[in-house]
Amino acid sequence: MDKLEDLKTKLQAFADERDWDQFHSPKNLSMALSVEASELVECFQWLTEAQSQNLSPEQLSAVKDEMADVQIYLLRLATKLNVDMLDAVNQKIKKNALKYPADKVKGSSKKYNQYGSNDESDS
Amino acid sequence: MDKLEDLKTKLQAFADERDWDQFHSPKNLSMALSVEASELVECFQWLTEAQSQNLSPEQLSAVKDEMADVQIYLLRLATKLNVDMLDAVNQKIKKNALKYPADKVKGSSKKYNQYGSNDESDS
Amino acid sequence: MDKLEDLKTKLQAFADERDWDQFHSPKNLSMALSVEASELVECFQWLTEAQSQNLSPEQLSAVKDEMADVQIYLLRLATKLNVDMLDAVNQKIKKNALKYPADKVKGSSKKYNQYGSNDESDS
Amino acid sequence: MDKLEDLKTKLQAFADERDWDQFHSPKNLSMALSVEASELVECFQWLTEAQSQNLSPEQLSAVKDEMADVQIYLLRLATKLNVDMLDAVNQKIKKNALKYPADKVKGSSKKYNQYGSNDESDS
Repeated sequence: MDKLEDLKTKLQAFADERDWDQFHSPKNLSMALSVEASELVECFQWLTEAQSQNLSPEQLSAVKDEMADVQIYLLRLATKLNVDMLDAVNQKIKKNALKYPADKVKGSSKKYNQYGSNDESDS
Repeated sequence: MDKLEDLKTKLQAFADERDWDQFHSPKNLSMALSVEASELVECFQWLTEAQSQNLSPEQLSAVKDEMADVQIYLLRLATKLNVDMLDAVNQKIKKNALKYPADKVKGSSKKYNQYGSNDESDS
Repeated sequence: MDKLEDLKTKLQAFADERDWDQFHSPKNLSMALSVEASELVECFQWLTEAQSQNLSPEQLSAVKDEMADVQIYLLRLATKLNVDMLDAVNQKIKKNALKYPADKVKGSSKKYNQYGSNDESDS
Repeated sequence: MDKLEDLKTKLQAFADERDWDQFHSPKNLSMALSVEASELVECFQWLTEAQSQNLSPEQLSAVKDEMADVQIYLLRLATKLNVDMLDAVNQKIKKNALKYPADKVKGSSKKYNQYGSNDESDS
């Protein structure tokens, strides 16, 4: 069995033991996920980009905890909406490859709608 | 090899082909991740909790894409900071079990610091 | 003199006394603002919509503090980018009136690009 | 009458004309506000701090629109919760002055709980 599926089962048991399912509507879980994402941003907000690449062990440990929280709520949401995350990511990578053709976007951070991308051909 | 590690390799290749590594400092990736988390929130912001549990196929497809984007940036960040996501999640679940003892928090959504939790004993 | 401009001056003095201007690039201020917005979301994430309309005095006080933090970073950003917030809001309300014509959007929460809005005529 | 109060009245009329009050629970407004905050972050996510201080007229115009959207949802929330934003900000600045005494925090971006701040004396 897939390891992410194992985690989903483990997290469902964790919620069940605490009777937390009542709070875990997809709407609420999306809010909780975005709050954890911001706690991750908070770790970096006053650091330079260079400093963000050279975290102290304490900083890295705090960052790791916030990353885990994001992953946990993402898996909870995947459970509630019956989403296979690995499949969703693989499909999205294919879409992104059409949106951002390597030869056109090389070295640029523009958004896909600022290029003549191949996105419309995705029919 | 683990499937999440496979995805990390695939996403690194995707970034390399586009020369995007220059933009992918941990600071910037945390910002991009939080932006994707908010695009997920946007799918739910005007829905009731009940509606968020009964998405149309079009709504679900949009939600799935945003979930994938969150996962993608989380894996990019994990690559840059050399974090094993499965390990990080398993460690965080253990911490949460101490923070939120099932017998004390059952059916409540309060934050751990509003309980007399066992968190301080985590030494 | 306008009261928001007064606050901007007061907040600049607050930053100057602490030598914080070095951290207050527009990029960093946008991060801090979004972190405060999420702390506001955190106040509401496990509440029902009805509960969010009937906050206890303690809850309201916490919400008010987070709202103030959002306003503070918005004004700091306005100072750094030389933006007149009242003017920006008035201009945006005009744009929104074209994007969301009352007769077409009444009672609906759809996004403007899901209507035949008058937005393109805004030339 | 205060200009922010004028804007609140104007925005209430805007919502009334579109029958949008039904969607504007404090919970939902906090979500919408955080989504707009992230659209602001998106303007800056791939820019360096230096670039964020030297926006092109097009970039500045986009940033201004997102700042206005944040302000609009903040005022909507203030209407719903009967909050006077100017008063809330002034009170928060006083709290922050106790949390971050200028002589202790000068030139540092640490959080208040990493200092021996005067916060507890705020009784």
